Amino acid sequence: MELYSYFRSSASFRVRIGLALKGLAFDYRAVHLVRNEQLEPDFEALSPQRLVPLLIDGPHTVSQSLAILEYLDEQHPEPALLPADAPGRARVRSLALDIACEIHPLNNLRVLRYLTQQLGVSEDAKNAWYRHWTENGLLAVERRLARDEATGLYCHGDQPGLADCLLVPQIFNAQRFECQLDAVPTVMRIFEACMALPAFQSAQPSACPDAQ
Amino acid sequence: MELYSYFRSSASFRVRIGLALKGLAFDYRAVHLVRNEQLEPDFEALSPQRLVPLLIDGPHTVSQSLAILEYLDEQHPEPALLPADAPGRARVRSLALDIACEIHPLNNLRVLRYLTQQLGVSEDAKNAWYRHWTENGLLAVERRLARDEATGLYCHGDQPGLADCLLVPQIFNAQRFECQLDAVPTVMRIFEACMALPAFQSAQPSACPDAQ
Repeated sequence: MELYSYFRSSASFRVRIGLALKGLAFDYRAVHLVRNEQLEPDFEALSPQRLVPLLIDGPHTVSQSLAILEYLDEQHPEPALLPADAPGRARVRSLALDIACEIHPLNNLRVLRYLTQQLGVSEDAKNAWYRHWTENGLLAVERRLARDEATGLYCHGDQPGLADCLLVPQIFNAQRFECQLDAVPTVMRIFEACMALPAFQSAQPSACPDAQ
Repeated sequence: MELYSYFRSSASFRVRIGLALKGLAFDYRAVHLVRNEQLEPDFEALSPQRLVPLLIDGPHTVSQSLAILEYLDEQHPEPALLPADAPGRARVRSLALDIACEIHPLNNLRVLRYLTQQLGVSEDAKNAWYRHWTENGLLAVERRLARDEATGLYCHGDQPGLADCLLVPQIFNAQRFECQLDAVPTVMRIFEACMALPAFQSAQPSACPDAQ
């Protein structure tokens, strides 16, 4: 398998964690987003959306981090990233989507660029925007995790899974932008538990071949 | 089943389509987002994220439109919203996420409010932002659909499915904000094919009990 990735892309980080949890080997293909390598024709031929991550598995090309993680879970079922029961799967997917749809899309590079370049927003206002969506989004995740007995050592029970693959990269981003995380103790407890595991450590940005 | 919904919420619209395609009856519970009813304590007790749609199915509460659609597909498999093969499922999920993660989150009500109220963005600049993310996001979807023989009458083959549940509400939004759609002929062909079906018609905003 080949994974097109950028070390600091949190969507790529999600997939790197999934691959590591399953112990799957892959060739790392770096796409430098800050240098706009995702816009080059060779890459656009593979990825019409011009996005990382992108997984190539033999004849199959899969884009979108959540679709890649579901694909990996179907093709390589052990260890499972999703619970065995439908309500449990719904809970885990919903937690993952709370991050993938409510937090991350507002804070990715091209959105921050639009704010400063097209709308003339100041650096301070841009950073306030970043923190607003991250802190409020994580508070919603905290309210869910803290009040639900399905939460265990990790987001769902005592094995790391799909929701943890999303949670950890979002916390890396939050820390980089100096978000206030005191209000999300359950989130941070789970983050620390994940980061104690080799799979999460090996997938982190600083461990990537293209890390700077 | 009960569905908490707002007639104009495109995430709610996605789930209404899925329920209609499967012929599942449900009780409609209106949550008026413009009046901020999602912030009331009674609703927050059900939905820690304060978001619609929310599905209640006996003892199970499911949030996030994509998680709800996957849950419905698992609990009520026929007609299927996802293909039978893993690469096909990955393609459909990825198309759905191209809309759910790359377009919609930038254009929902609370984001538009932040632009005008916190950042002091003009109505014109707000509408330009809306059209920018919608038009560029739909162009990426168009490039995928137009070049792939897996595309049929609908996004994937000749039966409507999960990706169509996402595509149609996004086009309703695009038309409401007067986006330029000439550049996405495959998308619009599929939109028209979907809207010829009773399931899509019955789920549309104007058919909802809370339509205004």
